[in-house]
Amino acid sequence: MTAPTSTIARWHEVVRTGDAGALAALLADDAVFHSPIVHAPQLGKALTQMYLMGAFHVFVNDTFRYVREVVGARDAALEFECTIDGIHVNGVDLIAWNDDGLIVSFKVMVRPLKAIELIHQKMRALLAPRP
Amino acid sequence: MTAPTSTIARWHEVVRTGDAGALAALLADDAVFHSPIVHAPQLGKALTQMYLMGAFHVFVNDTFRYVREVVGARDAALEFECTIDGIHVNGVDLIAWNDDGLIVSFKVMVRPLKAIELIHQKMRALLAPRP
Repeated sequence: MTAPTSTIARWHEVVRTGDAGALAALLADDAVFHSPIVHAPQLGKALTQMYLMGAFHVFVNDTFRYVREVVGARDAALEFECTIDGIHVNGVDLIAWNDDGLIVSFKVMVRPLKAIELIHQKMRALLAPRP
Repeated sequence: MTAPTSTIARWHEVVRTGDAGALAALLADDAVFHSPIVHAPQLGKALTQMYLMGAFHVFVNDTFRYVREVVGARDAALEFECTIDGIHVNGVDLIAWNDDGLIVSFKVMVRPLKAIELIHQKMRALLAPRP
């Protein structure tokens, strides 16, 4: 069993590098992504990876930083801040992992309303459903 | 110094009872409330208490339940779910406390977009600024 903190250490490395392969290696096959915008969960490793890579494009710029971490045995809450198009974005990544230290659930929440509306626009443009 | 878990245990009791006096006793004088809607923090115990009592009215009904807790030495993330007017609401309370175990920072984030829009309407009706 991988020590819990190593999942978060690996996550930080993925955020730092934006490496799609390292992200894939950190996700369980049955990983689920919960978006800040839509209620329905996105099921499976492929969709989770797609949404997280999309989130990197939207959220992670020079202003992005984690400002608080609460880490438990199987879950962590990582609070972040960034500025996008001049709008202050404050959010939290709620991450759960399995016995192998692989991420099984990744949930993002964002505040304030102005920021979530901006994220909605950005994610819709990036991840519009294909016909 | 109060054990960290006791702050969260006391918080759960406040949520269960909705007791304004017990809430006041759990807040530090310099407590700050961060709303899911507005960027600007609400400074001080009086405003924090007012917003939290407002949040009780909006969020806490028979469907409200905490579904995940990550608790650290000075911070906790408490994820909740409830249904309001038929809309599924998923959120997180990010709580920080001081050496005395009193809450100094209370931040709420909510997903999905439909839920935050509903909360916006409800909180605006309840906490409209007075002229």
